Amino acid sequence: MCTALSFSAGNHYFGRNLDVEKSYGQKVVITPKGFEVAMRCLPSFRTKYAMLGMAITPDNFPLCFEATNEKGLSIAGLNFPDNAHYNVTIAGKSNVTPFELPLWLLGQCDNVHQARILLTKCNIVNINFSASLPLSPLHWMLADKDECIVIESTKDGLKIYDNPFGVLTNNPPFDWHLMNMNNYLHLHNAGSVNANNNSMAHNYSLGLGALGLPGDFSSASRFVKAAFVKNNSVKSENETENVSQFFHILASVAMPKGCVKMPNGEYEFTLYSCCCNTDKGIFYYNTYDDSTIRSVNMNDYNTTDNTKLIIIGEEI
Amino acid sequence: MCTALSFSAGNHYFGRNLDVEKSYGQKVVITPKGFEVAMRCLPSFRTKYAMLGMAITPDNFPLCFEATNEKGLSIAGLNFPDNAHYNVTIAGKSNVTPFELPLWLLGQCDNVHQARILLTKCNIVNINFSASLPLSPLHWMLADKDECIVIESTKDGLKIYDNPFGVLTNNPPFDWHLMNMNNYLHLHNAGSVNANNNSMAHNYSLGLGALGLPGDFSSASRFVKAAFVKNNSVKSENETENVSQFFHILASVAMPKGCVKMPNGEYEFTLYSCCCNTDKGIFYYNTYDDSTIRSVNMNDYNTTDNTKLIIIGEEI
Amino acid sequence: MCTALSFSAGNHYFGRNLDVEKSYGQKVVITPKGFEVAMRCLPSFRTKYAMLGMAITPDNFPLCFEATNEKGLSIAGLNFPDNAHYNVTIAGKSNVTPFELPLWLLGQCDNVHQARILLTKCNIVNINFSASLPLSPLHWMLADKDECIVIESTKDGLKIYDNPFGVLTNNPPFDWHLMNMNNYLHLHNAGSVNANNNSMAHNYSLGLGALGLPGDFSSASRFVKAAFVKNNSVKSENETENVSQFFHILASVAMPKGCVKMPNGEYEFTLYSCCCNTDKGIFYYNTYDDSTIRSVNMNDYNTTDNTKLIIIGEEI
Amino acid sequence: MCTALSFSAGNHYFGRNLDVEKSYGQKVVITPKGFEVAMRCLPSFRTKYAMLGMAITPDNFPLCFEATNEKGLSIAGLNFPDNAHYNVTIAGKSNVTPFELPLWLLGQCDNVHQARILLTKCNIVNINFSASLPLSPLHWMLADKDECIVIESTKDGLKIYDNPFGVLTNNPPFDWHLMNMNNYLHLHNAGSVNANNNSMAHNYSLGLGALGLPGDFSSASRFVKAAFVKNNSVKSENETENVSQFFHILASVAMPKGCVKMPNGEYEFTLYSCCCNTDKGIFYYNTYDDSTIRSVNMNDYNTTDNTKLIIIGEEI
Repeated sequence: MCTALSFSAGNHYFGRNLDVEKSYGQKVVITPKGFEVAMRCLPSFRTKYAMLGMAITPDNFPLCFEATNEKGLSIAGLNFPDNAHYNVTIAGKSNVTPFELPLWLLGQCDNVHQARILLTKCNIVNINFSASLPLSPLHWMLADKDECIVIESTKDGLKIYDNPFGVLTNNPPFDWHLMNMNNYLHLHNAGSVNANNNSMAHNYSLGLGALGLPGDFSSASRFVKAAFVKNNSVKSENETENVSQFFHILASVAMPKGCVKMPNGEYEFTLYSCCCNTDKGIFYYNTYDDSTIRSVNMNDYNTTDNTKLIIIGEEI
Repeated sequence: MCTALSFSAGNHYFGRNLDVEKSYGQKVVITPKGFEVAMRCLPSFRTKYAMLGMAITPDNFPLCFEATNEKGLSIAGLNFPDNAHYNVTIAGKSNVTPFELPLWLLGQCDNVHQARILLTKCNIVNINFSASLPLSPLHWMLADKDECIVIESTKDGLKIYDNPFGVLTNNPPFDWHLMNMNNYLHLHNAGSVNANNNSMAHNYSLGLGALGLPGDFSSASRFVKAAFVKNNSVKSENETENVSQFFHILASVAMPKGCVKMPNGEYEFTLYSCCCNTDKGIFYYNTYDDSTIRSVNMNDYNTTDNTKLIIIGEEI
Repeated sequence: MCTALSFSAGNHYFGRNLDVEKSYGQKVVITPKGFEVAMRCLPSFRTKYAMLGMAITPDNFPLCFEATNEKGLSIAGLNFPDNAHYNVTIAGKSNVTPFELPLWLLGQCDNVHQARILLTKCNIVNINFSASLPLSPLHWMLADKDECIVIESTKDGLKIYDNPFGVLTNNPPFDWHLMNMNNYLHLHNAGSVNANNNSMAHNYSLGLGALGLPGDFSSASRFVKAAFVKNNSVKSENETENVSQFFHILASVAMPKGCVKMPNGEYEFTLYSCCCNTDKGIFYYNTYDDSTIRSVNMNDYNTTDNTKLIIIGEEI
Repeated sequence: MCTALSFSAGNHYFGRNLDVEKSYGQKVVITPKGFEVAMRCLPSFRTKYAMLGMAITPDNFPLCFEATNEKGLSIAGLNFPDNAHYNVTIAGKSNVTPFELPLWLLGQCDNVHQARILLTKCNIVNINFSASLPLSPLHWMLADKDECIVIESTKDGLKIYDNPFGVLTNNPPFDWHLMNMNNYLHLHNAGSVNANNNSMAHNYSLGLGALGLPGDFSSASRFVKAAFVKNNSVKSENETENVSQFFHILASVAMPKGCVKMPNGEYEFTLYSCCCNTDKGIFYYNTYDDSTIRSVNMNDYNTTDNTKLIIIGEEI
């Protein structure tokens, strides 16, 4: 379970909470410009743009949790169990595996508009990375500074949705969340309005205008709360304040350890939160047990050595 | 508006979110042992124990937002508008001003039990600190490792409530929250239980057992959510993990900037969060725009020079 | 569990749902003017006014579930378990048993104003009607066309509350409900207002302005829903329409059989609903298995034969 | 807006609330066996079975609001604005207008199984009954004693859904409601379970197990509440009790006048409620201002005179 977020405040920011029960060993990874991507069903290609985000890198292949390229196009994959449906290859289609999708889009496209065109012929195929790395059921949020879309491959086919909220969580499919938001669009950040002219009415607390906002950790509730907090968030021209605000939005839907129990008795929690300034190529992140926000600036690295991935820092 | 929390996990931890629209200029302050407290209506006394917490210090008097003494007895004052009622002095009572109360209790008592005795004769009186520092309407949470109580002075008199939840927010009075919690004690951290044997039932997300948990920023909703998150929180023997967990509980009810609008158009937000390990005398805190957790260890300071307050670091 | 209602629409109407697991054998009863009431702790008195409502009549004493007198003063007793506290007799007080209270007030008072005066010295005493008819824990709603109050005898003493909602259910004490209503006074009967200027917003259904209105059968939820439905109810000059509307309000919070299970496995349900036009002295009622509204007009009976109760029709 | 219900208790019962702002002049109508139905795009046919329900009958054509045939197959049409999509005629399809659909199915089919087969080739076409009787946007619930389905013609085509809840309201499309029910399947009719072992927990009211059940009048909320009340309803072998229970389920989601305001300022309300014992062919109904349940027994009429509709009683 996870929450992804696209937020514009002066610059454009894109990031997410990764909610899991344990680490996969991911690190911050820069995939350089011109990196050769060996595709399973399509010809290999070289990335047009460098990209930055959390990934694991088995066999020197970046399996991206989320990423932003030099043009600011960003993607995050989020858990989509029971609903994600991957297909057999289809002749004449662009057959792309789920683990290739981030590179395939960010390695070739400047923006969402270009990605939409690529996606027109795309077929998400059911091919594991390896026997020991089977596919996760995912859907994706893809955004640039102007547009945000959701990509879902279900039994009904590949769906591309405009995402006016700039938020994605998990189940149910995105169109359910879209409809569900109609039950919350009346919530606001001010005092309760006394609709009934009752003389007893009393704003006993600030914030009563948002009564009804859910606070549990289910995917439907996190979607609603993240959208509300994002929509009401202040915007600054100051990088520190905007990044801070982004992390506060994510914190409002983060999972504290113990609050979300899995059937096996383990707890899901927000292992890391991250935020990329997609205009500047700066990736910020913190972890469950270290709230200090660290940053990686893509411009500080030589992203033109196309032979190897740049792997930064420790396992998260 | 604020949220206070008492949490036991190996050691005992006490802290709070301070939700305000702007800083009062508070800093971390250690009030030394033997510090002379000039009371308005009672004889002056010297503090039996040093104490630690955020305060402002006009005229060398520590106006404590929250504090913990060397014995681990802790107090936090929280906004209680419209309900707080302070009285005229009454002969034969211990007449104490709201701003004196933290020092009066923590300066003299080892624990909640002793404080209860002092409070028996206490009358909270309506005397300003100064013309420029009028009284705030407050109620208080007082805790040690064994007990937690709430102190409210209302039109009905001075009320001392046992606080089985170890949480305090703001309005309404505490007994309302106590009753209200009965509407949420069925919530849990696991999957939804299919009460109706419906074959369509489907735990489409983790965490459905907590559906109904409120997520808005009103005082009643923050109380419920903080109590739920605290109650389900994992406990560790590791200081870093326990402190981290404490800050995650506070973050789950923190106010992002923009989400709580005051009638004057300003926004209330969580200016700082803090957590004191009351066994060790270590005070941790971070701020809205700097999530890094800083700490002050009372044992690193000479707390026996009773002539002056120890004021640490910058304004928060 | 029950719901009582006071509603003004041209005339004044007062009534209730009786939610129980089985009948007590109650019937419509007219207590005549001049009927002698033998009080347990006070001198006996003769009723100044005739009164009408459901009652059982052991030993020719009307134990009223609810009643309206010739002046339109009306009372209903509702279950108040754990909170109702009846006292020992106190010298100098008007010691009244719970079962005497309806007659004591409606037999002597023209209106709420006069009843308030009588209640000033009242002490509700813990004296059973008989060994086989122990006291029920009750609180009461008392209303005339101008005023509505709630009477509660708890450990804190006898409380008289103004009731601006004209609704009463059961636990918790009335002041909790009063406060709780502040969480619902923003609900309205029209479409949802798009507070966030989101272009996706869509009133997909009529009635979205009332999202958040509870629909379960607990006493706190029935209070909120009954108050909302009453407050939004249309008013007519037509008796049939007003009585119909009154029963529709009651139906909106009635308990269908099976939806409210008691610890012993039995079901509470709305055994009868009733409505008295207090201006005309007409009592309307229907039952769970016969929705036809029947009526008893007090003016059709000789209410001046003070020797005996007029018992009308079958057991309900 | 409306609520339809299929309920089995000894016999099978089918019915609905009709929620409108004014009457269309409908009456109880029996369409006889052998009645000739002139179809717009298909050959005319003669009804295999008589059928019974509310309808208007312009030009001697029964426009059924809901109906049950002699085999117990029942249908109700419910408002489905913005989502209902009717098509142009398609060669090779069974082109059926929305107003023909009830007769086309109930006039030819014994049960849902047979209807499913007919629906396989069905195309709902956009042809008005007349210039003065344009099409309403509808979806339908079709049920027999064993099965219940929902029929929706949207932009995505004709959808046939199994309906495990036996309830239908209005927007959004049925699959949204199906998913939404997962947020309510943990609600139950007993006391609240203290999930957190909190010693303060207190079932202060019966029925706390259903906390979270919505009580507003929107279509999504009525679906949830009707499903809960139906699912928990007691069942009897007694016709009066079962019919009574059916009307109580409908009453729990009925619209009181004034609670649902339309954009034009008029109020939607539950004009009539009805229930057909589909095994016996007895149709029960009452109206907003006359709660008495009236009945029409199909067996009391000569349903074999195929020349004319049998129109019973007054306009509802």
